[in-house]
Amino acid sequence: MDFAPSVRATGLVDRVRGFIAEEITPIEADYHRSVAALRDSGADPWNPLPVLTELRTKARAAGLWNLFLPAAHAGEYAARFGTDGGTGLTNVDYAPIAEETGRSFLAPHVFNCNAPDSGNMEVLLQFGTPAQRQRWLEPLLDGTIRSAFGMTEPDVASSDATNMAATAMLDGEDVVINGRKWWTTGIGHRDCAVIIFMGLTYPEAEKHRRHTMVLVPVDTPGVRIERMLPAMGRYDEPFGHGEVSFTDVRVPAENIVLGPGRAFEIAQGRLGPGRVHHCMRLIGLAESALAAACARGVERTAFGRPLAQLGGNRERIAKARIAIDAARLLVLNAAWKLDTVGAFGALSEISQIKAHVPMMAQEVIDFAMQIHGGAGLSDDVPLSAAWTTARAVRLADGPDEVHLDVVGRLELAKYMQGR
Amino acid sequence: MDFAPSVRATGLVDRVRGFIAEEITPIEADYHRSVAALRDSGADPWNPLPVLTELRTKARAAGLWNLFLPAAHAGEYAARFGTDGGTGLTNVDYAPIAEETGRSFLAPHVFNCNAPDSGNMEVLLQFGTPAQRQRWLEPLLDGTIRSAFGMTEPDVASSDATNMAATAMLDGEDVVINGRKWWTTGIGHRDCAVIIFMGLTYPEAEKHRRHTMVLVPVDTPGVRIERMLPAMGRYDEPFGHGEVSFTDVRVPAENIVLGPGRAFEIAQGRLGPGRVHHCMRLIGLAESALAAACARGVERTAFGRPLAQLGGNRERIAKARIAIDAARLLVLNAAWKLDTVGAFGALSEISQIKAHVPMMAQEVIDFAMQIHGGAGLSDDVPLSAAWTTARAVRLADGPDEVHLDVVGRLELAKYMQGR
Amino acid sequence: MDFAPSVRATGLVDRVRGFIAEEITPIEADYHRSVAALRDSGADPWNPLPVLTELRTKARAAGLWNLFLPAAHAGEYAARFGTDGGTGLTNVDYAPIAEETGRSFLAPHVFNCNAPDSGNMEVLLQFGTPAQRQRWLEPLLDGTIRSAFGMTEPDVASSDATNMAATAMLDGEDVVINGRKWWTTGIGHRDCAVIIFMGLTYPEAEKHRRHTMVLVPVDTPGVRIERMLPAMGRYDEPFGHGEVSFTDVRVPAENIVLGPGRAFEIAQGRLGPGRVHHCMRLIGLAESALAAACARGVERTAFGRPLAQLGGNRERIAKARIAIDAARLLVLNAAWKLDTVGAFGALSEISQIKAHVPMMAQEVIDFAMQIHGGAGLSDDVPLSAAWTTARAVRLADGPDEVHLDVVGRLELAKYMQGR
Amino acid sequence: MDFAPSVRATGLVDRVRGFIAEEITPIEADYHRSVAALRDSGADPWNPLPVLTELRTKARAAGLWNLFLPAAHAGEYAARFGTDGGTGLTNVDYAPIAEETGRSFLAPHVFNCNAPDSGNMEVLLQFGTPAQRQRWLEPLLDGTIRSAFGMTEPDVASSDATNMAATAMLDGEDVVINGRKWWTTGIGHRDCAVIIFMGLTYPEAEKHRRHTMVLVPVDTPGVRIERMLPAMGRYDEPFGHGEVSFTDVRVPAENIVLGPGRAFEIAQGRLGPGRVHHCMRLIGLAESALAAACARGVERTAFGRPLAQLGGNRERIAKARIAIDAARLLVLNAAWKLDTVGAFGALSEISQIKAHVPMMAQEVIDFAMQIHGGAGLSDDVPLSAAWTTARAVRLADGPDEVHLDVVGRLELAKYMQGR
Repeated sequence: MDFAPSVRATGLVDRVRGFIAEEITPIEADYHRSVAALRDSGADPWNPLPVLTELRTKARAAGLWNLFLPAAHAGEYAARFGTDGGTGLTNVDYAPIAEETGRSFLAPHVFNCNAPDSGNMEVLLQFGTPAQRQRWLEPLLDGTIRSAFGMTEPDVASSDATNMAATAMLDGEDVVINGRKWWTTGIGHRDCAVIIFMGLTYPEAEKHRRHTMVLVPVDTPGVRIERMLPAMGRYDEPFGHGEVSFTDVRVPAENIVLGPGRAFEIAQGRLGPGRVHHCMRLIGLAESALAAACARGVERTAFGRPLAQLGGNRERIAKARIAIDAARLLVLNAAWKLDTVGAFGALSEISQIKAHVPMMAQEVIDFAMQIHGGAGLSDDVPLSAAWTTARAVRLADGPDEVHLDVVGRLELAKYMQGR
Repeated sequence: MDFAPSVRATGLVDRVRGFIAEEITPIEADYHRSVAALRDSGADPWNPLPVLTELRTKARAAGLWNLFLPAAHAGEYAARFGTDGGTGLTNVDYAPIAEETGRSFLAPHVFNCNAPDSGNMEVLLQFGTPAQRQRWLEPLLDGTIRSAFGMTEPDVASSDATNMAATAMLDGEDVVINGRKWWTTGIGHRDCAVIIFMGLTYPEAEKHRRHTMVLVPVDTPGVRIERMLPAMGRYDEPFGHGEVSFTDVRVPAENIVLGPGRAFEIAQGRLGPGRVHHCMRLIGLAESALAAACARGVERTAFGRPLAQLGGNRERIAKARIAIDAARLLVLNAAWKLDTVGAFGALSEISQIKAHVPMMAQEVIDFAMQIHGGAGLSDDVPLSAAWTTARAVRLADGPDEVHLDVVGRLELAKYMQGR
Repeated sequence: MDFAPSVRATGLVDRVRGFIAEEITPIEADYHRSVAALRDSGADPWNPLPVLTELRTKARAAGLWNLFLPAAHAGEYAARFGTDGGTGLTNVDYAPIAEETGRSFLAPHVFNCNAPDSGNMEVLLQFGTPAQRQRWLEPLLDGTIRSAFGMTEPDVASSDATNMAATAMLDGEDVVINGRKWWTTGIGHRDCAVIIFMGLTYPEAEKHRRHTMVLVPVDTPGVRIERMLPAMGRYDEPFGHGEVSFTDVRVPAENIVLGPGRAFEIAQGRLGPGRVHHCMRLIGLAESALAAACARGVERTAFGRPLAQLGGNRERIAKARIAIDAARLLVLNAAWKLDTVGAFGALSEISQIKAHVPMMAQEVIDFAMQIHGGAGLSDDVPLSAAWTTARAVRLADGPDEVHLDVVGRLELAKYMQGR
Repeated sequence: MDFAPSVRATGLVDRVRGFIAEEITPIEADYHRSVAALRDSGADPWNPLPVLTELRTKARAAGLWNLFLPAAHAGEYAARFGTDGGTGLTNVDYAPIAEETGRSFLAPHVFNCNAPDSGNMEVLLQFGTPAQRQRWLEPLLDGTIRSAFGMTEPDVASSDATNMAATAMLDGEDVVINGRKWWTTGIGHRDCAVIIFMGLTYPEAEKHRRHTMVLVPVDTPGVRIERMLPAMGRYDEPFGHGEVSFTDVRVPAENIVLGPGRAFEIAQGRLGPGRVHHCMRLIGLAESALAAACARGVERTAFGRPLAQLGGNRERIAKARIAIDAARLLVLNAAWKLDTVGAFGALSEISQIKAHVPMMAQEVIDFAMQIHGGAGLSDDVPLSAAWTTARAVRLADGPDEVHLDVVGRLELAKYMQGR
C-alpha cells in the first residue's frame, strides 16, 4: 500500500498546480461570466472563447498534455503526444494530478485530459486497430478533434446497461445503427468528430455478449443531435450533453471496436481508470469548496462573530476535512489496486469510490453553498456549478445504487461458499 | 390540537386541487418549455406568456383568488378581493391550500398567493396606513401590480438581519435611501411596482430598533436593477431575483411602514404566516416528487425488476412518506399555534418548520431525481427545478442554522431560570 | 385531525404526571440502585421491592389503574377495574398518558399499563371467551397475576412471523405444544402465570392461517424457563426476558384464543394500540433524555462556556426538539386514525411510527449520553437504560426494516393499479 | 504515503492472527459465559479465569508479547521484553496488529498490549526516570503487575482537561494528593499496582502548565476504590472502571513524571499512539461485526429470501465495507504521519481518527445487531459488548466533539493568517 506518487509525478503535480494558479485561475471566473453574458444576450455560447484555445497551446508547450496517458498502454503515443516525451503514468501517479485539475472547470480540457475524451482515447489505445488509432486516436491526442460516448438511452433504465435497446446490426461489410441516446457528453463541441456508440447486436446472446461498440463519425448520414440537455438548468457549454438519434446510420464494420458483442469487455477496462479520474477530480472540487467555505467563514461576521465560529459550523468544517481525506485515501487505494492487481482485482474498490465519492463531494459543496448564503446559489462563486457536477456524477457512469450493489455482492460472496 | 380545516376550507382545497388538475397541470410543462425555448433562442423570456394571464382571470372568476388573506386581518378586503366574498382563512385552513398550490410552479401566482406578494400584502393589511393600503394593497389584491421585498445585502452576512447596512435616513419630510440589496425576488416581473425596502435609520439605537421599512416605487429615481441573479443556474422568469442599487433615492416619509426603527416588529409579524406558506408549498412539492419517484419506480425495469423493488429503494420511499407526513404535521401544528396563541407564542414552532421542512423537501426531491436517472437532472421532469426551490428556501428568509439556533435557545431557556 | 385529548383524558394526564412526580420520581433512582446492589452482592434481584407493590396500591387507590383500557372494548371491565368507574379511553386520549408513563421505568407497571400485560389484556378483551376472561383477564386487571407473550424463536428469523416453527397441534380435546421461544418478556416476574403462546398448527394452510394462539399456564408440565436473557447486558428485573422451552406441553383446546389458525388475525388487532403505546412511551423517554441533556448543558462548563453553548450542541438540542415533536405528532396521527378508521385503515400510520420513533428516541438518547460524558454510560443517570429500551424496541414486535417495508409497499400500491 | 507494514510486521500480523484463531477464539465465548455465570450466581467475577493466565504465558512463549513497544522509544526493553528480541515497531507496523487484536476482547491483554497499560508503559518509556522504570515499567512489561490511569473526574466536565480539580500539591519531599477520579480503567484488576494520577499543582499557572502526573501505588494510604462503574450495564471484569477517592495521599516527589506542571506535555505524547491503537482495535471490531452480519445475512431466511437480500441490507453491507475501509486508511495515514513527522505534525490526523472511527464502528455494529434480531442484543453473540466498547471510546480520552473541534480549528487556522 504505497500511495506516494513517483518523483516524476510529484514534479508534474507541482507544474500542473502552478499552471492552473498562474494561467487558468486568473481568467476562469471571467470565462464563465463571458459565456453567461453571451447566453443571456441571445448570442451563441457554444463557441469556445479564444482564450481557451490559447491555454491549450500553452499547456502543451509547457509539457502538460495528455497526462492521463496510462503507463500500461501508452506505448509510442506517450513519446509522441505525452508529457516530456516520457512514458505514461500509473493510476497512483496520475491521481493527484487529476485532483489538481478538478479544482477548475477548464483545466481538464486545457490539459487534454477531460471526460469523455480521455476515456475514449484509452479505449482506442487499449482496443483500437492500427487504422482506428490513426484515424481517431492521433487527432484526439493531438487535440484537433473531440469525441463523445453514446451509451445511456432515454427509454430504458440505463443503470442496467444490458437494457440498452439501440441497435448496431451487422449487414455485410457494414454496421447499421438505429436508436436514440442521450446524455451524450461532449457532442455539443464544434470539434466533436466521433461518437463511440454502444448498441445491441445479438439480442439472443448471453446478456453481457449482446452489445457492440462502434466508432460513428458525427457527420454520418442519419446521425442527428435532437437537442442539447440542461443538467440542473446548465448546458455546460462548449461541451454539452446531447440527445442524439440514429436512423439507419451505416458505417463500415471495421469501425467496430474489439469485435461484435464485446462492448462489455471494453466497458470494464475503460471504466476503472475513468472512475479514479472522476473521483479525484471531485476530490479537488470538494477541496475548493471547503477552502471557499473556510475563507468565507473567517471573513464574514454575524451576531458578532465570524460565521465559522457560529453553531455547528466548525464541526461541519472538521467533518468535511475528514470526509475529503478519507475519500482521497479510498481513491488512492483503488488506484493502487488498479496498478497492482488490475481492473478485475480492483472491482470492489472501484465501485466503492464511485458509490461514495460523488455523494461526499455533493455534501461538502452543499455545506459550502450554505455558508455562502445567497452568493452560494448564484454564479458569483462556482459552488452551484460544482454541486451540479458532483450531483451529475452520482448518475453518470452508473448510479450510486448500482455501485453499492456491486460492493455488497462482492462482500457477501465471501460468505456464500458452498451455498 | 385540532388540525382539521373548516368545512369551507375543505371545499376550497378541493376546488383548488380541481382547478390545478384541469387548468394548470395540462399546460404547465409546455409553459416551462416555451420559456426555455425563448431563452435558448435569444428571445426575451421575461414576458409572462398570455396563458398565465388567462389562468389568473379564470382563477379569479372561479373564486380562487387571494386565498391567503388572513382571517385575523382581512377585514373588508376579504369581502372585496377575497374568495366568495367570505372572510379570510385561518392558518390551519389555508395550510392545505398552500400545499396544493406548491405542487405547481405556476399555481401560487395564478391564485395571487405567491411570495413575496402575499407576505407584502399581509404587511400592508396589518401595518399599512389607509393611504398606503389604497395605493399599494388594493392593486396588489386586484392583481394589477406586483411587489418585491428588499432585505438581503451582498456585502454583509444577512443571516444576521441586524447587519443590514443600506440606509433609510430621515431628511425632513422625506426618507433618503442608499445601498444595495440582492435576492430581491419578484423584481424582474414587468408589473413589479413597489419594493418594501428595509434599511438602517438609527445606527446607535438598540439592535432591533435601528431599521425601518419603506415603500419604494420601483420607478423612483436612483433605483436601479443592476442585474438579475440566477439561482443554481435558473432565473425563474417571469419573477426573478434582482440585485438592486439605491442611490440617493428619496421618497416621502409617509411611505414608511409602521414607523421609523420598527422594521423588526413588522418582520416578526410578517414572517410567521409566510413561513407556514413556504413550508406547506414545499410539502406539496415533496409530495409531487415522491409521486413521481413511485410512478417511475413501478414503471421502469432494471436487472429484471421494477426499480422500486431494487436495493433500498422501497425503504427510501417509505422514509420519504414518513418524512413528508411528519413535516406536514409539524407545519399544521405551527399553523395551529399561530392561530391560537399568535406569532410570539409560536416562535419555536415557526422556527422548527423553517429549519426542518426545506431540508426534508430537498432530500426527498434528491431521491426522486436519483430514481429518475438522467431525466431527473434534465428539464423533462420538474425535479431539478423543484430541488432548486427547496434549496433556495434553506437560505431565503434566514438560513436553516439561524432557525435551529432560535429553537435551541428557546429550549435551553427553560433550563436557565435563575442562572 | 383532532389530536386534542378529551377533558377527562387531560385531567388524567395531569393526575398521572402528578403521581409520578410525587410518588415515583423521588424513589426511582434508589429503586434501581437497590436492585443493582442486590445483583452485585450476589443476592436475588428478581423479587420486586416492597415499595413497588405499595406504589401499585396507591396508584389504584388514586384511580390511576388500567388506564390503557380501550373505549372500544372495555365494556364492564372499565367499570369494575378501570379508572373512576369510567369507560375506557380512545387511543388519542391514552397517548399523552402513555407518554407520561414512559418517562419512568417503573410507572407503566405501577399503573398496571405495562407491556406485554396491557397487550395481552387487550387480546383477551377483544377475543377471549367468557371463561378465558374470567380465569386470566380479571386477575390481570386486578393486578394479582402477570403474563408473557411467546412469539419470537431463537432458531428462525422471526421478523417474518410466518417463520415461526414451534408447534401447537390439535390432539382431541387438547393442544400439544412443542418448541422454543425467546425474548418472552415478563416471564421472569414471580407472579407471571400465563403465556400467550403462538405456534404452528396447520403447516399446509395459507401462510397467515397456519398459526394459533394458546393460553399456556406457566406451571404446565413441559414448560421450562431455560434462562433469562440480558439485553445489552441488562436483565430488566423483576420482569426480564426469558428463553422458554415447551416439551409436549398439553393444555385443553378451550385455551385457544379465537380459534385454531387465527393467530395473525389477533396479532393484527393487538399490535395497533400496542405500537402506539410503545411509541408514546419512547417519546416520553426521549423527552426525559432531552431535558437531562439541556439541564447538563447549562450546568457544566468546559473551555469557559456552558456545554450547551459549545460547538454544535445547541443545534443538536434544536434538532432533538424538532425530532421529538414531529414524532409525537406522527404517533398522535396514528392514534387518531386507529380511533377513526380502525387498525386496517391505519396500517401505514402504525408501521410508520414503529419504524420511525424508536430510532428517533435512540438518537436523542445517544446525544444525551454524549453530553453527559462518562456519567452518560454509567447507571448514575438513567440514560444508558433508556438507550437500551429504545434499541430493544427497534427489534421488539418486528424490526424497523419490516415496518418500513410495509410503509413502502402501501405507498407503491397506489401506483400499481392495472399492473 | 506508504502504509505497507514491514516484512517483520507482516509476519507478526500473521502470527497474531493465527494465535487468536487457534488459541483465543475457541475459548472466548466460553470465557465470557463463565464470567457471566459467576456474576449471575453471586460468585466473584473479578478473578481472571486460569485460562487467561495460560494464554498470556503461551503468547509470550510464542514471541507475541509487548508488540506495541514503539521503535522510537523501546531501547533495551524491546530486547528484554519485546518480541523475538527485536526492536519495537513503528506505528504503521503495529497498526494492523492492533486491528487483529481488536477482533477479540481478550487478545489485547493476552499479548500484554491492552489499554491503559500499553499507554502507561509508553509514558514510562518516554518520560520515566530510571528508578521509575525499574519499579513500574519492568514489571508491567513482564506482566506481573497492571496499572490504571486517573484523569476524568465526576464533578467537572473533563472533556476540557484543564478543568481537572483533584490536586497534587508539592509538600517538601512529597506530593500530597486529594480529590476524586472516575472511569479509572483497569483499577478492578487484582494485579493493578499503580495509578498514573493527573492533578492540579499550580492553579495560577498558564492553563496547560498547571497539572502534574504522579505515580501512585494503589496501596498507598488514602487511596480508596469507592465503587466499580458499569458502562452500559457492564463491568468489564476483570479490568473494570473505578471511582477512586484520594484523601491526603502522600507519595515521594520522585514519583512525579517528567516534572511538576508538565502533565499536558506527557498527555500529548502519550495520546498519539494510543489513539491509533484504540482506532485500529475498533476497526478490527467493526470488521468482526460486519463478518457476523454477512454470515447471518446469508444464513437466515425471511419472506423466502436470505436476510442479506432483503430491503436495503445489501446496501448497508456495502456502506459498512466502504466505511471500514475508509476508516482504516485514515488511521494508517495518521500512523504514518506519527512515524514520519511526529505527534505535533500529526495533530489533525490523530484528532480526525479519534473523532471519526468510534462513531463509524458504533454504526457498523448497530447494523450488525439489527440484522441479528434479538440475538444481537443478547450475550450469545459479542455484538452488544462490541457496541458498548465503541460507544465508550466516543467518550474515553476526549469526546468526539473535542476532537472535531481540534480538526476544525486547525483547518480554519490556514485561513486566519493576518487576522
